[in-house]
Amino acid sequence: MLPSLSSHISPSISPATAMETSTGIDKRPEPIDLSQHYSKTTKNRAASNIKQFYKYFTIPGIGNLAGGMPYVNNFPFDTLEADAALPQRFTPTPNRPVDPPTAPTSATKLSDPISSSRVVVPKLSDNDDILRKIDLKTALQYGTAQGYLPLYTFIRQFTIENLHPNIPYKGGPEIILTCGSTDGFSKTLEALTNTWNEDRDEIGYKEGLLVEEFCYINAIQAARPRGLNIVPVALDDEGMKAHGKGGLFDVLKNWDKSRGKRPHLIYTVTVGHNPTGGTLSIQRRKDIYAVCVMFDVIIVEDDPYWYLQYPSANPSNPNRTLSQKHQTQTGLSDQATCTPQKSSGYPFLDSLVPSYLSVDYQGRVVRLDTFSKTVAPGCRLGWITTQPNLCERILRITETSTQQPSGFVQSMIAEMIIGPHDSTHGRGGGENAGGWQVDGWVRWLEGLRGNYERQMQTMCSILEDGKELVKSGTVRSLDDEWSVVDKVPLYDFVWPLGGMFVWVHMNFETHPLWKKTTPDKLAMALWEYLTTRKYLVLVMPGKILAPTDEIRAAKGWAFFRLCFVAVDEPEVAKSTRRFVAGVQDFWRKKRLDDIEEISSQAIEAGEGMADLMGGC
Amino acid sequence: MLPSLSSHISPSISPATAMETSTGIDKRPEPIDLSQHYSKTTKNRAASNIKQFYKYFTIPGIGNLAGGMPYVNNFPFDTLEADAALPQRFTPTPNRPVDPPTAPTSATKLSDPISSSRVVVPKLSDNDDILRKIDLKTALQYGTAQGYLPLYTFIRQFTIENLHPNIPYKGGPEIILTCGSTDGFSKTLEALTNTWNEDRDEIGYKEGLLVEEFCYINAIQAARPRGLNIVPVALDDEGMKAHGKGGLFDVLKNWDKSRGKRPHLIYTVTVGHNPTGGTLSIQRRKDIYAVCVMFDVIIVEDDPYWYLQYPSANPSNPNRTLSQKHQTQTGLSDQATCTPQKSSGYPFLDSLVPSYLSVDYQGRVVRLDTFSKTVAPGCRLGWITTQPNLCERILRITETSTQQPSGFVQSMIAEMIIGPHDSTHGRGGGENAGGWQVDGWVRWLEGLRGNYERQMQTMCSILEDGKELVKSGTVRSLDDEWSVVDKVPLYDFVWPLGGMFVWVHMNFETHPLWKKTTPDKLAMALWEYLTTRKYLVLVMPGKILAPTDEIRAAKGWAFFRLCFVAVDEPEVAKSTRRFVAGVQDFWRKKRLDDIEEISSQAIEAGEGMADLMGGC
Repeated sequence: MLPSLSSHISPSISPATAMETSTGIDKRPEPIDLSQHYSKTTKNRAASNIKQFYKYFTIPGIGNLAGGMPYVNNFPFDTLEADAALPQRFTPTPNRPVDPPTAPTSATKLSDPISSSRVVVPKLSDNDDILRKIDLKTALQYGTAQGYLPLYTFIRQFTIENLHPNIPYKGGPEIILTCGSTDGFSKTLEALTNTWNEDRDEIGYKEGLLVEEFCYINAIQAARPRGLNIVPVALDDEGMKAHGKGGLFDVLKNWDKSRGKRPHLIYTVTVGHNPTGGTLSIQRRKDIYAVCVMFDVIIVEDDPYWYLQYPSANPSNPNRTLSQKHQTQTGLSDQATCTPQKSSGYPFLDSLVPSYLSVDYQGRVVRLDTFSKTVAPGCRLGWITTQPNLCERILRITETSTQQPSGFVQSMIAEMIIGPHDSTHGRGGGENAGGWQVDGWVRWLEGLRGNYERQMQTMCSILEDGKELVKSGTVRSLDDEWSVVDKVPLYDFVWPLGGMFVWVHMNFETHPLWKKTTPDKLAMALWEYLTTRKYLVLVMPGKILAPTDEIRAAKGWAFFRLCFVAVDEPEVAKSTRRFVAGVQDFWRKKRLDDIEEISSQAIEAGEGMADLMGGC
Repeated sequence: MLPSLSSHISPSISPATAMETSTGIDKRPEPIDLSQHYSKTTKNRAASNIKQFYKYFTIPGIGNLAGGMPYVNNFPFDTLEADAALPQRFTPTPNRPVDPPTAPTSATKLSDPISSSRVVVPKLSDNDDILRKIDLKTALQYGTAQGYLPLYTFIRQFTIENLHPNIPYKGGPEIILTCGSTDGFSKTLEALTNTWNEDRDEIGYKEGLLVEEFCYINAIQAARPRGLNIVPVALDDEGMKAHGKGGLFDVLKNWDKSRGKRPHLIYTVTVGHNPTGGTLSIQRRKDIYAVCVMFDVIIVEDDPYWYLQYPSANPSNPNRTLSQKHQTQTGLSDQATCTPQKSSGYPFLDSLVPSYLSVDYQGRVVRLDTFSKTVAPGCRLGWITTQPNLCERILRITETSTQQPSGFVQSMIAEMIIGPHDSTHGRGGGENAGGWQVDGWVRWLEGLRGNYERQMQTMCSILEDGKELVKSGTVRSLDDEWSVVDKVPLYDFVWPLGGMFVWVHMNFETHPLWKKTTPDKLAMALWEYLTTRKYLVLVMPGKILAPTDEIRAAKGWAFFRLCFVAVDEPEVAKSTRRFVAGVQDFWRKKRLDDIEEISSQAIEAGEGMADLMGGC
């Protein structure tokens, strides 16, 4: 390791300057001071004073014997290249929520399956502008903690101008690139929470993390070892509840201080919630935000599925039915009545439920974005958007941990999207060897959304068709005999307005053996049963996705999460049909022995669902 | 974000099995239990119970609706490719320490500058062995926390069989890939230290980190905010001292508990020490290790420069002189008398001073390796080698932070080195489209070492020639008059046996103005003077590399660190000559005004060295 002097050579970009409004005067309120929320470790982090070296590095002709950066010609890579998609590869679906789905649901639809491009990151670019220079000399060198300059610059501008053009605080946010959102959350926790040690610390120091009552468990696994209270908040079909029993206000207002400090941090997934599939409306965002202002709580919004919003899941879709109540709650319906102050410039982006950032007039939102769902999970690349002061603290954490995401992925994505810019070297991912540019990136997102939306429709249609067990029989009275059709509801679910998951609530109460065993055993048996040779389908047990033992015991068993993106569309259809068939057949089991046999085999082998449930 | 179920699909590789000795019985002692050193957060980390899902994922034909992994065809990248070097690109230098340098010192020597290869990572590989399958479907998917399986498998084997074939504890070590050594150290700190908060914690809980009295400051910047005592240990030309005043034993034996707990962790760079250039002999390693056993201290060995050991820096090199004392201390001299039990299989690797791991009979060494110096810093890729229990704890930290290094860099390096293995898809970096293989990787390292060794010789030769100011004059007595030559020693330095740096001790005591100003001001003035138009050279002030204020004040000013790898060899020569010229001219300054003018200009501008020194 060497001091990453070069990580600070870049000219810093003033947020205030870059985000001045077009009128020249920024009349938005200043973001509030969050420093009382910083962890002790974060408060201790001195700003890197090595930045003051900058001016010396930029002396023309200076011979640099100071920094410990290996010379570019010693890198074994002379280029990085790729075959990549053109942004038009997939067919989009329509944006307007009231539109019926127009795309066929039978297959991933390729706009132009053979159209691809050649991306080349050269060893040396002749571009003098380091904000746009993409080459291996810069990308594979020690770099800037905020991210590779061309990519950082592009994402920053895209974030501020296109994704969130209506952030209500002065100067707007800053961004920093991460090694994916798990890394982003880990750094946010490090910045904003103190660890608590039961062996030595008073309970009054114990901090807490507010989460939905079913949630992304990896977030819990990051927080719990730090000694944080994990505090679930009630959910409905949209997501976290602001008011009502178990809602955010209720939890904070009635906080019992004998458990520790009142929590000051929320972790939330607001679009295509994992695992429940909910999408939070604008109104709900405002309600939650108001409670956060009241109790001085910071919102960490993890939104990997933000681009994957599905208008066709709206109740007006003729393929299915949803309660009218839900229709008025959905963000997508709200969206039509909420005119943003400023357009993103793209109908697709304007059609999406906006981030918490759009209501963040105090600067208390930390948004996590990722390339995992829009390019690939293996990128390990994402970014944090938040108020500049907090972003700078996360930058300091980055300097002494990951330093920056890998230059391999940063340069490839930069070259694909941004392209070589008036250079004779390098090739971007566009048709003319330029980059995709913002237009292409938005088009790619729209096509990807189309693919996933079609897969969602495929799964939900099959689930919809199979959610009742139809039993016909005859009923006899003394005088007569007639045939009847009995419909047993097996499960219910809401078509997801975004994301990758369908959250299926199993009506175990209707199972013939409901009273003869425990709900937990019944659920375990069904889960096992689905993996047997006849059905061969693996779903995610809800229990694994419950943040606390209480929730796991109370209702974890009642849910399965089904993901519709892990395989291609024909496979989604086949697997979903097998799921439906397995559930239907399972409801025909009437002997307790059948159920117990399924479970006990697995339990004896020590590999069953019971073990999985142990201590998530 | 989604639960990285897939991160656990891989079959686990049993360390014990993989490392059994060829006789079948492993008679080495068990590594000791380090769990009392684990941080509270680390103790709190439950093992991921989701691993028990494994067997279900591997049911033939199972339809996976459980995991949230996007389908490979939705990734925009269809291939990743590169032009890469063949391993023979650079000419090696000889290994034996007594050999004089045979390579010319005037230029980087290319064995075959035009020989390069084409590396291709395909979208899909047809290899069924997931330990050897390299493709985008696997590399760009959510992955295993220990690293991308083919690369992890390769590095693990290379580490155990080739790098450290003589690790003395039972079963040997485990490895985990990191996002570079800064990330590796950050995770090690997280695993092995508790944070301490002066506002609430008793002093008795304050832990400490032992470091060399000049050290890699980024490590300090990672540790200090956690509330750790930073405890310097005296250095000599080799590195950390085991005994004597200020040595490790002295510091630990006389630890003042009113400062906190006796430190239980050392951070050390043992080859080509940054900044002092020292390389630790085997004997010194044994001495330090014995002290660590005595006081139950864990050694974190950060060895980015391990492959860059320079036999020609040995005193027997006729180009220069070093004290005989030093000759007997160097690791490279020792090496000749220490026959390892087992060869690495490569004369080059056998010629290197072995790691602390080779004396680690208790399993108390954590070694950090990186690709930053052998491929490129922008890889953000490295690995940790340590006993399996501790490695598993670091794996848990990885699962909730970085998850794994980027699949872009992991797959490209895997394909280059390992190659496609009997597949019709993909191309490795070897001549026949196979991988470099271990032979090629070692050959690459040897060539790279050659390049850097030649650059080291270039810099040191020029420094050697200029280290005295030769003044001629006449001396008169009453009777006679004769000419004299007065040699003023300007600086001294040791030719580095490894690494990237020359640590130059400036003899400010010989400067005409030594008594007329403070040493600090004199050093500042020289540093500034070197950056002026006539000399245009930037070196690293020693003060920046001191871990504490005391050391900074006592002797930080007396050193400059010069790096010989950041530019190509002709530039190294030119910059070093300008450094020498600047120093020589600076020693000709006799008026205090000259010195003060240089410093004050910078100080007034608020950008001078004084600011840099503030609070590293």
